[in-house]
Amino acid sequence: MIKNIYNNPTDYAALVQRPTQDNAAVKKVVQEILNNVKDNGDVALWQYAKSIDKLEADSLLVSEVEIATAVANVSDTLKKAIQQAKANITTFHAAQLKAEAKIETMPGITCWRKSVAIQKVGLYIPGGTAPLFSTVLMLAVPAQLVGCKEIILCTPAKGNTPIAPEILYTAQLCGITKIYKLGGAAAIAAMAYGTATVPQVYKIFGPGNQYVTVAKQLVQETGVAIDMPAGPSEVCVMADETAVPAYVAADLLSQAEHGVDSQVMLVTLPGFDITELQNELTKQTALLPRKEMVAATLANSTIVTFDELTKAIEFVNEYAAEHLIVCCNNADGIAEQIVNAGSIFIGNYSPESVGDYASGTNHTLPTNGYAKQYSGVSTDSFVKKITVQKLTKEGLHNIANTVIAMAEAEQLQAHANAVSLRIKKIEERI
Amino acid sequence: MIKNIYNNPTDYAALVQRPTQDNAAVKKVVQEILNNVKDNGDVALWQYAKSIDKLEADSLLVSEVEIATAVANVSDTLKKAIQQAKANITTFHAAQLKAEAKIETMPGITCWRKSVAIQKVGLYIPGGTAPLFSTVLMLAVPAQLVGCKEIILCTPAKGNTPIAPEILYTAQLCGITKIYKLGGAAAIAAMAYGTATVPQVYKIFGPGNQYVTVAKQLVQETGVAIDMPAGPSEVCVMADETAVPAYVAADLLSQAEHGVDSQVMLVTLPGFDITELQNELTKQTALLPRKEMVAATLANSTIVTFDELTKAIEFVNEYAAEHLIVCCNNADGIAEQIVNAGSIFIGNYSPESVGDYASGTNHTLPTNGYAKQYSGVSTDSFVKKITVQKLTKEGLHNIANTVIAMAEAEQLQAHANAVSLRIKKIEERI
Repeated sequence: MIKNIYNNPTDYAALVQRPTQDNAAVKKVVQEILNNVKDNGDVALWQYAKSIDKLEADSLLVSEVEIATAVANVSDTLKKAIQQAKANITTFHAAQLKAEAKIETMPGITCWRKSVAIQKVGLYIPGGTAPLFSTVLMLAVPAQLVGCKEIILCTPAKGNTPIAPEILYTAQLCGITKIYKLGGAAAIAAMAYGTATVPQVYKIFGPGNQYVTVAKQLVQETGVAIDMPAGPSEVCVMADETAVPAYVAADLLSQAEHGVDSQVMLVTLPGFDITELQNELTKQTALLPRKEMVAATLANSTIVTFDELTKAIEFVNEYAAEHLIVCCNNADGIAEQIVNAGSIFIGNYSPESVGDYASGTNHTLPTNGYAKQYSGVSTDSFVKKITVQKLTKEGLHNIANTVIAMAEAEQLQAHANAVSLRIKKIEERI
Repeated sequence: MIKNIYNNPTDYAALVQRPTQDNAAVKKVVQEILNNVKDNGDVALWQYAKSIDKLEADSLLVSEVEIATAVANVSDTLKKAIQQAKANITTFHAAQLKAEAKIETMPGITCWRKSVAIQKVGLYIPGGTAPLFSTVLMLAVPAQLVGCKEIILCTPAKGNTPIAPEILYTAQLCGITKIYKLGGAAAIAAMAYGTATVPQVYKIFGPGNQYVTVAKQLVQETGVAIDMPAGPSEVCVMADETAVPAYVAADLLSQAEHGVDSQVMLVTLPGFDITELQNELTKQTALLPRKEMVAATLANSTIVTFDELTKAIEFVNEYAAEHLIVCCNNADGIAEQIVNAGSIFIGNYSPESVGDYASGTNHTLPTNGYAKQYSGVSTDSFVKKITVQKLTKEGLHNIANTVIAMAEAEQLQAHANAVSLRIKKIEERI
């Protein structure tokens, strides 16, 4: 049951607000871990692996034998599913790779962009009870597609329990062989600074708890790039009389099972049966293994009803959901009016979970309202675009006066000279 | 004269190192400014404008009269130059805008990406003796091209001196009318948090001093996006026997005139005449208005000579220069082997200053080695890419087993239910 229901609100500020976290205490702990790993390398990594994860292992690097064992321990059914998901993710992401044309901006002036893979990237996959192997696909597939030279993966291992075989299977399926038994802020530090064992990378990707999030934020300040700022996962569903309440309930619950801090928002239009939805929520929750947690999340969730579609769209754009499911008349037209969202799912047969796993789109998406300014992960996230230009003598001649006038107005005489000196020499030779 | 010369170095680490800055003291001051503006809005803005900039004005917003006066005060020659530069920058950036195809990853599963402008962006243009109107072009042109709804600009005004007319002229030429007399960390705070006078934005662009840089870094932690981390400007020139020493000297000097912290690096191959270069540096420096500063910068600069091209390329990639000029045999082939650089200039007739002003490429580029993981500003910087998907019943059916198997393996039963419940209902109806 969702108890917070608002009808035709006019002030959206409080409703779109996400809970804020005070990271000050975490920040202090994380900064110490970062400093320790930076200064002491592998010694510090072993120290945290033993104290935090109680790791019993001879090496931080996962061995070939461990990978082979993991591969043998994943069922054929699951392997086929992971392979199908990989195929779809590959198809969607490969279509994003396009060489750009060379542009002649003036006669003799040719400019273009070339995409080049970030040479070294690090992927972080959290531990915990459920193995997040789907995130391995979402990060490793685009990294491989663009041609990153070095792709490493860190994921924690506890005691003498092997890393989840699904994670190792998926990693090797994606061609990743450098996998380290490292978790939390220490893993982020290892990838940011490098140690004798762990290679330094230029960009770090992947989800994690508050320690991981803060560690990524702090290393970003020192120049290591990160995929995006993180926050709890969230879904917003827009539903009118064409939406099936049982489906909507299932979608809200699939978000709610992520944890009590996950955000569930339902925006309804006239004709959607809220009573039927609430009944479905109760019925479907009762069958879930994590029902207490799900019920607690629903208690924090919100229904906002609107009489007018334009207001509903305005509200949804202000909320800027990570996942937005549109189950409405003319859902395609509504989707075109959405300017802030991580990923949009159109119609009754497009549940969020297909995008979470296997349809082909990436599930690493901006949360916390960051969809207003950030994109989800794509092949773009793993490349830099370098601009290139080449001028002929004629091209330089054509642009000389423009550059000289502007450089002189900015009081940069040497900038002007770099052009005028060449022009003078060219003219002397003619 | 450049005195630091290294022949065939094998260890690049020290040579590619940029000077590090200790920001701790600046950070404290900036955090106080940010907090003050966040809490007290316009009152705090006026306080800083009066205490730091000694601003004498009735309004922080630049008036229409001020803009009209500025437009009248820019010479026709300079106007024509700025218009030509704008045309080239528009041509190059417009070519970056491409609608992406819809991809059917499996029968009945259609996925695509749509680019949407970041709705509200803020541009910062520093004050100082030289008016950086070229940066207005570099930021405003792509922002307008992608269709950002709200584009605001902050630049400081001192005392009762009007803002440089070139800046106001360029801004209005690019359609920007909301220009605020605000500088430094207070300007960044105003755009990040919004005040009664200054609208809040989602992403902040533009160069600045250490206070601006740190302010951008700190607001980024709270979710406001920024263009890229900043550092002093830099050029690397690769030169062999085909390079003209006088041109190389002019290019090095045009970097050196940016200030004593700017980085100048020359990488030579056999046949390049270093003696002739040094003579040209001396000769050309003597004619510059900022000759003392330029000479001081050159004293900090470096020449690295290599016998082998492959080593030179390896070094240049490790340095990851903001600007890389390649004046060598087969410069095109060398440019293709460059994987880390902000922008590449090919051949003797492509000085950096053409790209700084007018060829069409963007001059907001990653410095400080960040070209390893960051791109320069482009239309990409002003959009988010939202993924969209739409499944038919058939599509959902085709992917159902894959999603269910993966969701169950990740112990996310409600994710599996969102699919299985739909499949069950579809089958009941058939």
